[in-house]
Amino acid sequence: MIRIKELAAGVRAGNIRSLAKAITLVESRSPDHSLAATTLLDELLPAAGNAIRIGISGVPGVGKSTFIEALGLYLTGRGHRVAVLAVDPSSQLSGGSILGDKTRMEELSRDPNAFIRPSPSGDTLGGVARKTRETMLVCEAAGYNVIIVETVGVGQSEITVASMVDLFVLLQLPGAGDELQGIKKGVMEIADLILINKAEGDNRPRAELAKSQIETALHIMQPKSSSWQVPVLLCSALKGEGIAETWQTIEDYRRTMEQSGEFAEKRRLQASDWMWSLLMDGLKDLFMRDPRVAALLPQVQDAVANGTSTPGAAARRLLEVFKRH
Amino acid sequence: MIRIKELAAGVRAGNIRSLAKAITLVESRSPDHSLAATTLLDELLPAAGNAIRIGISGVPGVGKSTFIEALGLYLTGRGHRVAVLAVDPSSQLSGGSILGDKTRMEELSRDPNAFIRPSPSGDTLGGVARKTRETMLVCEAAGYNVIIVETVGVGQSEITVASMVDLFVLLQLPGAGDELQGIKKGVMEIADLILINKAEGDNRPRAELAKSQIETALHIMQPKSSSWQVPVLLCSALKGEGIAETWQTIEDYRRTMEQSGEFAEKRRLQASDWMWSLLMDGLKDLFMRDPRVAALLPQVQDAVANGTSTPGAAARRLLEVFKRH
Repeated sequence: MIRIKELAAGVRAGNIRSLAKAITLVESRSPDHSLAATTLLDELLPAAGNAIRIGISGVPGVGKSTFIEALGLYLTGRGHRVAVLAVDPSSQLSGGSILGDKTRMEELSRDPNAFIRPSPSGDTLGGVARKTRETMLVCEAAGYNVIIVETVGVGQSEITVASMVDLFVLLQLPGAGDELQGIKKGVMEIADLILINKAEGDNRPRAELAKSQIETALHIMQPKSSSWQVPVLLCSALKGEGIAETWQTIEDYRRTMEQSGEFAEKRRLQASDWMWSLLMDGLKDLFMRDPRVAALLPQVQDAVANGTSTPGAAARRLLEVFKRH
Repeated sequence: MIRIKELAAGVRAGNIRSLAKAITLVESRSPDHSLAATTLLDELLPAAGNAIRIGISGVPGVGKSTFIEALGLYLTGRGHRVAVLAVDPSSQLSGGSILGDKTRMEELSRDPNAFIRPSPSGDTLGGVARKTRETMLVCEAAGYNVIIVETVGVGQSEITVASMVDLFVLLQLPGAGDELQGIKKGVMEIADLILINKAEGDNRPRAELAKSQIETALHIMQPKSSSWQVPVLLCSALKGEGIAETWQTIEDYRRTMEQSGEFAEKRRLQASDWMWSLLMDGLKDLFMRDPRVAALLPQVQDAVANGTSTPGAAARRLLEVFKRH
């Protein structure tokens, strides 16, 4: 226990070795480390929560790493401390499609005021997300005041990242067709800010067209907040254009949401939802590990799929077996 | 037990008093009736499953009951037996905003080949939906081969109804603006067929406009099935126009989905999801009823909301208490 207190003190002092060690502990899958990780997080919690948490997504090729490097360097240049985390459930299989290779953000990774952490490995999105949420708290306790959580533009991971950040930024490509990808996947609905990247040179007119099409699409969607109209901005991460305006917009968002009370309310809801999701995962785990449930489950599932048992009867049968345990 | 077998035989014989008694048993909230209801459903299950299950929704004023009456009478006139159920979680408070009053479908309710059942009362959408799913099976066993599940155009109830039917029909009003309501609520994404009702007289040009706007909106959405393009049809339930075409389209849908295997696959997934949802509800219920959990939960929830405990630590603490039980 004394070592956990020491480790926590090291993290709070901004010691980079303590930070790495703490994150390794939080990311550990070993059940032996679970109590130590909980104790550490409880120690660090009072020092966490002061950062702005920014989620960033976009399809492969949209220029996410170039953009994050440009934004990160802009922020460290203005005295901020920036942590870049990633949620990529495919990282275990592919060796990491994002952030696996630090050379992708070479300059930022050498910046003493930036910290870049690749996606934790994990068999499920839920497992990866849990570790990233906890790593976020560790980074905040270590004094990083801007947390960027990057994710890939596929499937459910954007929804998951949106549920752990204050603001979700969607990067889009210029050009007709592409700019509608967001709608198809239901991702545009969760964006608080949309950036059309690569809006440079010949791309400029196509970027302007994409901007107006996206604005039309946003117009027919239910707004997430009555106090915030989702802006669509153009930028060129490669040329460093639009980065200052992006940060200005993020600060406007934070101010607006803080004034309306939505900022704090969103964090409260996120924490409560997260607790319930962990609880339900834990309950399901208890249930599935019950040997009598495990023995009965396959045949009951087959009976439901074949239509020889009602789902209600199947659920009651399994719950009876579990309760008798 | 012998009485359950008798009741089941009465239902299968199409006896209307047995049907009403069986539905009352299935809808009962009394824990004493739970085993009898399960036994009854298991008895009826082999005779169920042969109907086409149609969900119907639309905002108040769109003409849902006029449409259902017109479609129902058209179908009984062609030898079908039609059951109309409802999912309306507000019915307990309001006394039923839909189907509470059978005079809304006066002619259909007097038709011997039609059966109309108002929404079961229930404190939660989940509770109402569970009863409606089970009532659907009872009606199928009683020989109704078209099941229509009506719901109100508010909130989550459409998503819930879509998860229990083979085909989800969205009724829309003619005219600009109104026709986009579906998109705003994320309901258009779950529709398999969209009908613009009241497309009569002066409304006709506005209905045509709505049709083309909806088709454009559908075009940018992810299709639910690669073998089915969601049709947008005009109808006038009041004048009985477009009813035959609607039924023709529903039959086309069924044939297409059966040929691609999606019809059976969707039902298997719905049954499995339903079982898991009942299981998780049951597990949560067991957890919440644990006296030690109940004693600890309020303070833990407050600590998470106030940021004095991490969600992870809170969940682990509650699960430990539950496990020790």
